[in-house]
This record gives sequence, C-alpha cells and structure tokens, in this order.
Amino acid sequence: MTQKYKEIAPTDMTSEQIIDLCSELAVGFAKRAAKHDREGSFPEENFQELKDHNLLCIMIPKDRGGMGADFLTYTRALEQIAKGDASTGLTFNMHNIAVGSLAELNIDGIGGSRGKKMNDFIDWVYDQAITHKKLFASASSEPGIGAHLSKMKTLYHKTDEGFVINGVKNWVSMAGYADYYVVAAKKADSTSDVPAISYLIVEKENPNARVEFTWDVLGMRGTSTNPVYFEDCFVPKESLFLGNEGMALFKVAREPHWLVGGYVGVYLGICTAAFEFLTNYLKNRNIPGTDKPLASDTRIQHKVGELFVKVESARASVYRAAKLVAERPGSVEANAAIHLSKFMVSELGPSLTSDAIRLCGGSTIAKFMPLERYYRESRCGGLMPATSDECLLYLGKHSFGTDLTKPDETYW
Amino acid sequence: MTQKYKEIAPTDMTSEQIIDLCSELAVGFAKRAAKHDREGSFPEENFQELKDHNLLCIMIPKDRGGMGADFLTYTRALEQIAKGDASTGLTFNMHNIAVGSLAELNIDGIGGSRGKKMNDFIDWVYDQAITHKKLFASASSEPGIGAHLSKMKTLYHKTDEGFVINGVKNWVSMAGYADYYVVAAKKADSTSDVPAISYLIVEKENPNARVEFTWDVLGMRGTSTNPVYFEDCFVPKESLFLGNEGMALFKVAREPHWLVGGYVGVYLGICTAAFEFLTNYLKNRNIPGTDKPLASDTRIQHKVGELFVKVESARASVYRAAKLVAERPGSVEANAAIHLSKFMVSELGPSLTSDAIRLCGGSTIAKFMPLERYYRESRCGGLMPATSDECLLYLGKHSFGTDLTKPDETYW
Amino acid sequence: MTQKYKEIAPTDMTSEQIIDLCSELAVGFAKRAAKHDREGSFPEENFQELKDHNLLCIMIPKDRGGMGADFLTYTRALEQIAKGDASTGLTFNMHNIAVGSLAELNIDGIGGSRGKKMNDFIDWVYDQAITHKKLFASASSEPGIGAHLSKMKTLYHKTDEGFVINGVKNWVSMAGYADYYVVAAKKADSTSDVPAISYLIVEKENPNARVEFTWDVLGMRGTSTNPVYFEDCFVPKESLFLGNEGMALFKVAREPHWLVGGYVGVYLGICTAAFEFLTNYLKNRNIPGTDKPLASDTRIQHKVGELFVKVESARASVYRAAKLVAERPGSVEANAAIHLSKFMVSELGPSLTSDAIRLCGGSTIAKFMPLERYYRESRCGGLMPATSDECLLYLGKHSFGTDLTKPDETYW
Amino acid sequence: MTQKYKEIAPTDMTSEQIIDLCSELAVGFAKRAAKHDREGSFPEENFQELKDHNLLCIMIPKDRGGMGADFLTYTRALEQIAKGDASTGLTFNMHNIAVGSLAELNIDGIGGSRGKKMNDFIDWVYDQAITHKKLFASASSEPGIGAHLSKMKTLYHKTDEGFVINGVKNWVSMAGYADYYVVAAKKADSTSDVPAISYLIVEKENPNARVEFTWDVLGMRGTSTNPVYFEDCFVPKESLFLGNEGMALFKVAREPHWLVGGYVGVYLGICTAAFEFLTNYLKNRNIPGTDKPLASDTRIQHKVGELFVKVESARASVYRAAKLVAERPGSVEANAAIHLSKFMVSELGPSLTSDAIRLCGGSTIAKFMPLERYYRESRCGGLMPATSDECLLYLGKHSFGTDLTKPDETYW
Repeated sequence: MTQKYKEIAPTDMTSEQIIDLCSELAVGFAKRAAKHDREGSFPEENFQELKDHNLLCIMIPKDRGGMGADFLTYTRALEQIAKGDASTGLTFNMHNIAVGSLAELNIDGIGGSRGKKMNDFIDWVYDQAITHKKLFASASSEPGIGAHLSKMKTLYHKTDEGFVINGVKNWVSMAGYADYYVVAAKKADSTSDVPAISYLIVEKENPNARVEFTWDVLGMRGTSTNPVYFEDCFVPKESLFLGNEGMALFKVAREPHWLVGGYVGVYLGICTAAFEFLTNYLKNRNIPGTDKPLASDTRIQHKVGELFVKVESARASVYRAAKLVAERPGSVEANAAIHLSKFMVSELGPSLTSDAIRLCGGSTIAKFMPLERYYRESRCGGLMPATSDECLLYLGKHSFGTDLTKPDETYW
Repeated sequence: MTQKYKEIAPTDMTSEQIIDLCSELAVGFAKRAAKHDREGSFPEENFQELKDHNLLCIMIPKDRGGMGADFLTYTRALEQIAKGDASTGLTFNMHNIAVGSLAELNIDGIGGSRGKKMNDFIDWVYDQAITHKKLFASASSEPGIGAHLSKMKTLYHKTDEGFVINGVKNWVSMAGYADYYVVAAKKADSTSDVPAISYLIVEKENPNARVEFTWDVLGMRGTSTNPVYFEDCFVPKESLFLGNEGMALFKVAREPHWLVGGYVGVYLGICTAAFEFLTNYLKNRNIPGTDKPLASDTRIQHKVGELFVKVESARASVYRAAKLVAERPGSVEANAAIHLSKFMVSELGPSLTSDAIRLCGGSTIAKFMPLERYYRESRCGGLMPATSDECLLYLGKHSFGTDLTKPDETYW
Repeated sequence: MTQKYKEIAPTDMTSEQIIDLCSELAVGFAKRAAKHDREGSFPEENFQELKDHNLLCIMIPKDRGGMGADFLTYTRALEQIAKGDASTGLTFNMHNIAVGSLAELNIDGIGGSRGKKMNDFIDWVYDQAITHKKLFASASSEPGIGAHLSKMKTLYHKTDEGFVINGVKNWVSMAGYADYYVVAAKKADSTSDVPAISYLIVEKENPNARVEFTWDVLGMRGTSTNPVYFEDCFVPKESLFLGNEGMALFKVAREPHWLVGGYVGVYLGICTAAFEFLTNYLKNRNIPGTDKPLASDTRIQHKVGELFVKVESARASVYRAAKLVAERPGSVEANAAIHLSKFMVSELGPSLTSDAIRLCGGSTIAKFMPLERYYRESRCGGLMPATSDECLLYLGKHSFGTDLTKPDETYW
Repeated sequence: MTQKYKEIAPTDMTSEQIIDLCSELAVGFAKRAAKHDREGSFPEENFQELKDHNLLCIMIPKDRGGMGADFLTYTRALEQIAKGDASTGLTFNMHNIAVGSLAELNIDGIGGSRGKKMNDFIDWVYDQAITHKKLFASASSEPGIGAHLSKMKTLYHKTDEGFVINGVKNWVSMAGYADYYVVAAKKADSTSDVPAISYLIVEKENPNARVEFTWDVLGMRGTSTNPVYFEDCFVPKESLFLGNEGMALFKVAREPHWLVGGYVGVYLGICTAAFEFLTNYLKNRNIPGTDKPLASDTRIQHKVGELFVKVESARASVYRAAKLVAERPGSVEANAAIHLSKFMVSELGPSLTSDAIRLCGGSTIAKFMPLERYYRESRCGGLMPATSDECLLYLGKHSFGTDLTKPDETYW
C-alpha cells in the first residue's frame, strides 16, 4: 500500500500524503515494536523503510529536492510514526533536528566567504540525506550536566587542518547506527560570558569515536541511546556546522523548537495510540458476567470523557505550537507554545496510560498487548530537554514577562 | 474613549473593534462590580452602556443592520465583558441566545406560509433589538428538573387567538429586567416520543408573569436570576418562536452551542481576569522581609507556569470551539469542542482562583480586591447547562462514537 | 440539653463530655452562622455560651481548676464548634493559644525569682480565664511580613516600670472583643543573631491600643480580624509573658503546634460539615425526572467514595497529629504530623467544597444553605500560619532529615 | 545477621522481631529482584529463606505453634518483604490468605461432626505449614469474570469419595510452585439465590491440574501468575475447606480483609522503597553544574514535601486499617478502612513513582536502579481485588450508609 508513495517524487508529496505515508509505515513498525522493545534492539528495518520512502529528506525544502514539510506537517508525521513505534519516532526526530534546523535558515543576505561556507555545508548535508540516505545523530548531553549546554565539559581545539574533540557525550540516540554525529563542544580557550559552543560533524567510522553499548532501560528501548567517547578525535575543517563557531547557545535560546519541539510529536503519538487502544478495548469487552460492553457503563463514559478532554487538549496544544513554529519560528508565542505542549504531552502520557490500565483492567498488563509498553515509554518524555519542570519554570517566567531569548534566563 | 465606537455604524464594526469596544466598556463594569456583587443588584448602568453602543445587535447579521459577529468574535467579546463583570457577561449572553440562534438560520429555501411566519418573527426580533433596544431573557429551567427540557412540566394550550402558558420557570436571569422572556413549554396534549417543546415570547409587563425576587447566592449575584411564575398566561399567536411548534429538543441536541457555548466566554473571562491579577500581584509584592518580588522565587515561577498551562489550554479550547461553531455549527466536531471547552473552563475557574488566593496570600481575601469575587463566581460555571459532569458523559459517549444528535442520547 | 453540662464542675468533665458539649453548643452556633457571616459581626452570643459552660478554661489543667483537655480532646472539641460556626472556632482557638501553651509547661524545676515570676504569671492568666471569664487574643502578624516573627517591626522599650510598645499588628482576631491582646514585639536594642521576641499582655481598654475595624472578606467574616495600632503603649512589668524576655522564636520553632496546630481542628470542622451536608443532600434529592435518589447513581457513589477517602485521610492525619502532640509535644514526629495535617485539611477544604457544589448542583449556591459558606471559609485555612506552602517546604526538609527546631531553618 | 532469628522458636518471636526479620531478609530479596524481574522467574531462593525462618507459619496462633502475628504485624512484615521484592511479598500473601483466614476463626462453640471436620481441617493445614513447610496458593479468579465470585463458571460435583472439579482459573500466583491450590468452585446443582461457592484443596501434583506458563507482563513478573486448568480433577472428601460447603460469598462480603487487605502491605512496601530511593538520590546528586545537592533546591523540597504527605497518608491509612482488622475483624469500620487503604496505596504507587522519575531525572530509568521497576510494579496494585474503582464504589455506598455485608451489595 505504501508502494504508491515510492513512485511519487519527494518534491511532489503533499502534507496529507506525507502524514498518510507515515501512518501506513507505522502499521509495520507497530508489528515489530514488541520485539525491539524486548531485545532493546535498534529497529533497522524501520529505518530502511523510511529511507526507501525518501523520508530522510522530509524537512529539506522542495526547491532543494526534499519533501519540504513544515513544522506542523512534520509533527503530525512524527505522531503517526510514534503511534506505531515511539523509538523509531524519537530517533527519526534526532536526524531531523540536524537537517531541519538548516532548512529553516534564511541565508540569502549573507555573502562573502561566510555565506559560501554556510552554503557549502548545507549542500553537503542535503546531499548526504537525499542521495546517500545518511542518518545524522545528535550528541549534545553529557554526564552530570544533562542538556545544559552552558555547563558543557567537552572541548575542542582548533588546528590548522580542523578540530580535535575531547569529551564524552551521553544520551546519544542511534549511537552506532547513525552515519554522523553532530557533536556539541566548547571552544577550549573560550573566554566570553556566554560560552562558545559549536557543533562538529563526526563520522560513525571515526576511530576516535567509541560507542559503549549499555542502554537497558524502562522504555524507548529501541533507540540505542548510548554514551560516545571522543578521545583526541580529529575532524577536518569542513566538519564545522554551518562553517560557524560559537552560535549554539544563542540559537537554542532563541529557537528552542528544534531541541524541544520534535519530542512533542513523538509523545503525542503514544498518547494517541493509548487512547485508541483504550476506547477500542472498552467497546469490545463486556462488563464481567454480562453481555454489555464496558463502554455502556456511565461511570466509564464519565472517566473516558475526562481522558478525552486531556488528550484533545494536549493534541490541540501540540498542533497549535507546531503551527506557530511553522508561521513564526523563534517568536515569543511559538517558544511559549512549544514549552507548553512539551509539558502537557509529556506529563499526560504517564497519567493517561496509568488510568488506561486501571480502566481496562489486569489483562492489559500482558506484553502481547501494547498498553504496558505505552505506560513505560510515555514516562520518558518529561525527562528529555526541556524537562517538564524546566518547561514550567520557562512558562512561569514567560507569564511574568521575562525575555527568555537571553541565554542567561533559560535552562540550557 | 468608547465614544469613538458610538460613532461607527454597527454594520461597519470589525471583529477587532467589537472586542476592543467590549474591553473598553469592561473597565467601567469592573468598577461597579463590587457594588452590585455586595447588593445583589442588577447592573442597569452596564446594560444602558451596552445599549448605547448598539451591542444588543452584536449577533444580528450585517445585512440586517447588526454587527454580524461570528461565534468566535462573540465569544471573545463576552470574555472581555466578563473580565470586567461576569454577571453582566452572563446576562448579556442570555439575550444573545435568543437573537443569535435566529441569525444562524438559513431559511432561504423555506417558502410558503411557513417561510413567511419565520421571516416575520425574525424581522420582529431584529427590530426589537436594533430599533427598540429590547432585551430578551431565556426561561428554560424548572424546579426539580434543571435544564432537562425533555422532563419539562410547564405546559401550553393552543387557543384560537394564541397560547396559554402554565408553569414555573426558575434560574431566569434578568428576571424583572429583560423586556421579553423566551419561555420553553411543552404542548399540553403532546403524544410524540420526543416531547413537543416550543418557545413562546412573553412580555415583561404581562400581568400573568410574576417574578419572585429571591436571588441571594454565592456568586453571579448581579444577574437577577429568579423564578418566574406563569399562571394562565396568555400570549398571542405571533409569540410563537419562529412560528414553529415542537422543535426545541431537536434543535438543542443538534446545535447545543447556543445553550452551552455562550457560558464558556463568560467563565473564560473570569479566568483571564484572575490570571492577570495573579501575575500582577506577584510582580508587585515582595517576599516578606526582602525587597525581591514574589515573582522572582523559582517555586512561584514553577507554580505560575503550571497555572499558565491550564489557563492557556482552557483559552485555546474555548477559541477553538468558537471557531468550529462559526465554521461548522452543529457538526460533530463543533459540538464535542463546545462541551470540552465548557468543562475545561468551568472546572479551571475554582481551582485557578483557589490556587491564586493560596499563592498571593491572605490579603487577597479582602473585598477591596477582586480575587475573592472571582473565586466565588467561577464556581458557578460548572452548574449551568451542560453541567461539568454532563459534559464529561457527553464526551465519553463521543469517544465511543455514539451519535449525540439524537435527543435520547443527550442529557437534555 | 447543654444544661446538664453547666452543672458538672469543669474539673469533672471527661474528654467525651467536653466534645459532646461543644457538639451541642454548635447546633446553636450553626443557626446564627449565616447572620454573622452576612453582617460580618462578631458572634458574641456564642462566646457568652462558651463562657457560661466554662469553656474558656478547657486547656487549664484539672489540678488548677480547668477542664484539662489534652490536645486531641481539644482538637476534636474545636472540630465540633467549627462544624457549627468556623469563625467561632477560629477565635476560640486564639484564646487557647495563650492559655494552652502555659498549661503545657513543666516549670517544676525552675526555682528562684525566675520560677516565681513564671508562676505568678500563670496564676494570673488562669484566674482571669476561670474566675473572670476573660478572653485572650493573639497579636502576632504584621503588615508586609505576615507571621514571620523573625522579621518583626513592632518594638518595645524597657522602662523602670514596664514596657512601651510601638508598632502595628494585623490579622488580630477578636480585635475589639477580646479582653487582652498577647502582643509579640522585638526588644528595641536586641543585637543577638536570633531576634529577641517577647510577648506582652495589653488590656483592651488601654488607650494607646487602637483597633481599626476594616474586616470585610471572603470568609471567616465573624472573627473581627482587624489591625491594632500600638502607639507609645505602656504596659506594667507584670505584663511580660511568663516574666521572660526573648524566648518567642525558640519556642515557636521547637513547639509549632500552638501556632499551627489549632487551626487544623477548625478547618477539619468545615470539612466534616461539608461532607455531612453532601451525603444528606444526595440521599434526599432525586435524579431529575425520577424518584430515585442521586445517591443511587453509581457515578455519584464513585465520586463520593473518592471524597470520603480524602476527608477520612485528612481527619486521620488531624487526629494522629493531635495525639502525637498530646503524647510527645515538640517531638520531630509531632511537629511533622502537625504540618502534614495543616496542609492536608487546609487544601482539602476548597477542593472538597468545590466538588460538593458541583455534585449537588446549582441550588446549593443559595445562601439559605450552608455549603456556599463552607466553600468561602475553607479557602482561608491555607493562608494562616504555617501556610500550605510553608508546610510543604517544612515537610520536604523533614524528608531530607533537616533539623527543623533550629529557628533559621523554619519559616517563622 | 538473620541467623539469630533462626534460633528463636516461632512462638517466641515478638512483633518487632518478626518485622525486623522480614526487613533483614528483604536485603537479600532486593539483590535478586532485578534478575527475577528480567527473567520472569519465580524467586525460589527467597521462599527457601522464608521457609528456613519459619515464616510460613507467621499467621498461625502461638498456641498452635506459629508466630501468631496479628494483622498489623503481618501487614508491616509484608511491607518490609515487598520493599525488597514485591513479587515475593505478593505471593507470600497468597499463602497467608489461606492460612490466616483459619487462624482468625473462633470455632470453640461449634461441636458435633461439623466442629470436628473444621478442627481436622485446621490441624491439617497448620501441620502442612509448620512441619512440612508447604505453600498454599489461591485459585479464585477466572477468565472473563475476574474475582467476581458470584459469576463463577468453575463447577464441582460431589461424589461418594469426594469432589470433581471442572473449570479454568487464571491469575493463580505461584502456579507450578505452590504445593496446594485453594480452588474456589460453584456447586454444580446449586439453586440458591446466593451461589454456593466452596473452596477445595488440590495438590500441585494432581495429574488433572495443569498449569500453562504464559506470564509475561509489565510488573510483578516473579510471581508465576498463570492459568490452571482443572479437568475432571478429583479431590478426596478431606479437601473441602473447613469441611464446609457454600460459605465463600458470605465470608468474603463480611470479612473482605483477607482477599483485599493483604495487598495493601505489598504495595505500601513499593511506595516506601520508592520514597527512600527518591530522598537518597536527591541528597546525593548535585544540581547540574554545581556542588549543591538537588535536595537543597526549594522547588524540590516543596515537591518532596507534597509526596511525603501522600506517602505518609497512605501509610497511616494502611496501618490504621490493619489495626482495625486486628481489633475488630469484619466490623464496618475495619472493612471501610481496608478498602480505603487499598485504594490509596494502589493509586499512590503509579503517581509517586512517576513523579519520582520526573524529579530524579533521566538516569533513573536505567535497569541497574530499582526505580523503574517500582514504576512498573506499582501499577499492578489497583488491578487486584478489590480494584481501585470497586473500592471507591464500596466507599461511596458506605458513605451513604449502605449495609455492605450483604453479598448483593458488594462487587464480588
């Protein structure tokens, strides 16, 4: 059924087709999800299918050969993928953080060697994604500091030929599977107030980038989220992200949607799947000892109504945020909306799935049904940047009118 | 400042001007709110101002001489009015239920004497509202049955000259102040499965319509919400709403936004006012014994962030519902959205204002500040139709795919 | 019916009789509650009855002529009084803070002139309460600092004959009605790390103690809680509480149950009354249009079960805390339990009464029923010291093992 | 360290020693918990240790050679065991349901052959538990009806030599490991209003009792909770529980503490463990980029204070219920308290552990820490009888004064 979409050029895909394609692929992802969850294995078949359907270029502009999805289309596509397998959605998002943040740039006015460097870099990334179907992974977090970029310990030195990185990154999703790591590192001799953080591209095959496979966790088990050690790890000049040093912190404070906003589609997907499971289950199971469905009980209707309110509110917040990002990326409204939806959807997950198990009853803790996996996976959303509590602090300051585009007011 | 709006013809007002006008008027309403709340008196000055600014025709189509507000504009205007004085907002809405539900009708295709009767009735109502600045009140609820139309006890008999009504209505807002009552009554000899409920117009001066002034309650004290007794109360033929008997229950099940949806703007207004009060207060008061504002405390930022999420979610749900009503009145989506937002905003109020008092501290229970009034008034929202629990039952059934446009599936 | 208790000597009253007496008196208090609430008037008749039944000596040890109630008996008696009228309970507690904290002291080992001064003071207080039926009020809080004793601005100077007080106290309950104020003040030339706070007794008639009657608030309207201005207010030597300077802060940190613990009985009383109202109402009203009581609906049973859990948990926490205070006053366990119960019962009140109104429906916002008053009064509990959030911070630190008997770790 | 307890005769053990012994054993259980959780294997070593320390006779009266624990001691012992490994606690409780319900009986007044049969049965059970260290498992639930005994489909026929059982039981914990199953079955030709349900003892080795090992679930993975098929399964006369037919439903309605109350200790144990983990973790981890512990942050103190309130309330409810059962088993108060605590502790678990993961952060989802297991296991409590919602319905009816000892008012 997805065959038809293979025959459409990426640049011809409409938003609805992209979302529909992801929804179709998710049917297969859902079938494999329990296996990868049990084994903690990376869903390589799923990524093969994403590649086969050209989805690595979902964020690349149409005039550069990609699908040109806007942030709302992207978020809804991610929701569909994650409905089938949240691990696949999460890691797919990591790739798009790198690619998508480039797509958004307006570099028309930037001339000279600086403009050329930027253009060359973007060309290279697009070519890797479109022609070579290469996957990019983000390597930002570090032990003891999490995603707080400003406290980073990984350093890089500049040499004549390029850069040498030393440090350890953790929470690197797709470690060992992505083709490239986008590594955040601090300039070794940086003396500015706001630390000079840059991004550098490291190939998976780089002999001085070593993955330690230790991922064994509650949920999102199929993401190969592991530490990567960079020891005197040399990369050539061209590896500098956008040919530009020191912009990471400014960028992330001003446009947090890439680092924060992708997750919301993923965790919304789990909520969507859980609510669908719940309503189907209650329609198809009877009240013990009767032939009336559980769905006919007024107490259950009342509770499901309550959950509907929560799910629909979270969904509305996600779509609204994504729309604002698409229309006004980096605006105060878009940034607030992204943090609001990140909080809502992350904290809805555990309570929704907990209530769903309670409502559906004991049978649904069995591993041959997906609900218990949703319960485990959904708890992970609020731990990813910005964490649920960072979101609330952000929104509290926002309510008081604080300017949160200043790096020293954010949580990074 | 509102003078300028008096000089603009109603038919020339834009949506933003309507909302802005209401916002301006609300400044004055807010000043009188404490007095009417204390006395339980009807805010007659406020209604004089609404009349002076032609707002009784807010819902009448522009081509018929009104402001032609759509449901979203209307809801946002109501929010502004209620931000100043919720009692005024609530009673103003009662008028618009009658007028607005007419504005929505498409009677182009209805010819013959039936079409003529409808047209005549609509003409009369518009004329009353535009030219004579008459106020309409809704008389639907009854003792012991609340707003459950299907269980109604008030009856009417048809005579050659018109109709004779017997029964008692309670919860009639603006009783004694509105110029006309729109009375729901059951046809005395109705034998159909779905009771034949009709609406009849009764003049305030009708000697057989007697108000009992007993309103003395927790909140919404300025609404003159009182019982009205109809004893052998005769009204002429032309008083039949839309010239049409027996349609009330079908209408309310199919298009519940008029009976349910107006409240959401009112109670959102209280939430908006409370949240503004809260953030201002915390910015302008210091942590005891220091010169740092309470707003600088991270624990308070965190909590305010949490409340921001709730207020913005409720607001988004209200605007989304109102937009859906404007675009697709009576659709499954619009109806679900109205009930969702009615629930959210009604139950947010008491918890938001309770938390606000807790956060701001003991001083804010004083009557010279408005917060304690918001606390009292906001508790009333969930009691009005559809009540909070009726909303949840509605949404639970909706989640299971039940067709809720059938009168026997709703709560009416 | 309470006549029999007048004929029993205070020293012969058992715990159960004390509680029963208060329960009997509360029937009358309940009848007057609406009037005092409406007028904001002080319930003088109630205090006359408390005096007539010797209840001003409830906390005075039996061997000194009082009823000798322990803290659990006292708390349960207070619950009964507040069930009838929370304002009366709250103000009655203020009296017992002064008297009861003396009763608890063990001064057997304290000899010399210090011991004599303490004994003389205690004798005087007991005599005032037992023989002269005098009421004591607490004057601790101040504008801008609340109950944070350590930040106090009211000062006293020592003279040869006594003390001169200058400052303003607010939140003085029974202002203008109590016979004596127990005024907390800071020694003018105190240089110690922990401020030297003392308590001084000021007679109501003192010409330099001036009450400003401004109390007009959401709830607890019958408490005459007003500011009192002390301007060069002289009091003789004997007015020094316990003949002892500078101990207030140490005392309150070590034994917070007097300043914190009395409130729990009061606000539990409101919860008890509200839950009783709720269950009675639902048993006696029918589901609209049927002859089945609301209590027979499973959805309502489910919700009432949920509220029962909350009310019973709060009640259990209050009784447990009071028992611990009776057995081990000032112990880590008792102090934690008092703060825990203060939080639980204070925050239960607004949510319980809000839910009760929602469950019972619109009729219960009328002022001829008490539920709307419970809704207003219960919101005040969490604002009194320790506030709900101070309780949580206290308990959080307690969970981490912090020693909270040190004045600099508490919130005072 | 537990060696000393082996040397004390069971009948000499004090309550505190029993609890301490379980606490000591739990240290070892905690070490094995992750392994059994991962494998889904039954913790046989743990049961060997329980047997070695004579704990299979914990509920048998001292004068019959057991430890004679009362329900409070038992509950606290269970809490300790479950703190180490909840699966072990849960299954250990299943054994004690059978043994403990006998210990409670007062059969002194029952003479004749009926009394003899009861005595013989009790003697046999005690001998099996004390001398032969045999484990009993409960086989009550069935597919499609859960624990609703009144809707049971498993039947037994009486023959001259004994009974023949046909049916399938599910949710049989310790299936394949316990020595005996206590099987609930309905008399085949029962015609009474209240179905005649009896309990029959079936040996593990009975060739017509077949276990299907399918247990693969979210949590409580080490309990071997599996279906058991009874096909023409013959058991001799002596296998009839207490020599008495048809009493099961009356018993369970009147004294629900055995079927409901044992779980509360187990799930309290998980909460206790989770809260200890949480406070330790926050004391020993620093705020990112600082050397201050997370525990020093006021926002975290505030949240931990909130969780403390919930944990202590749940704990107090459990101890209070267990004490009431010990003092007045089957009383209205004890039964309500058991359902209240079952609800509180079951629903606290998932929210507490979810909040704990959120507070502690991403590291705590790793399987080398126990928190993620607590998150999974705690969700199972509310699914066991009485389920959380059955508890609330029970307590709602109780609030309205319904007599819940009548089988037709309960949920069984």
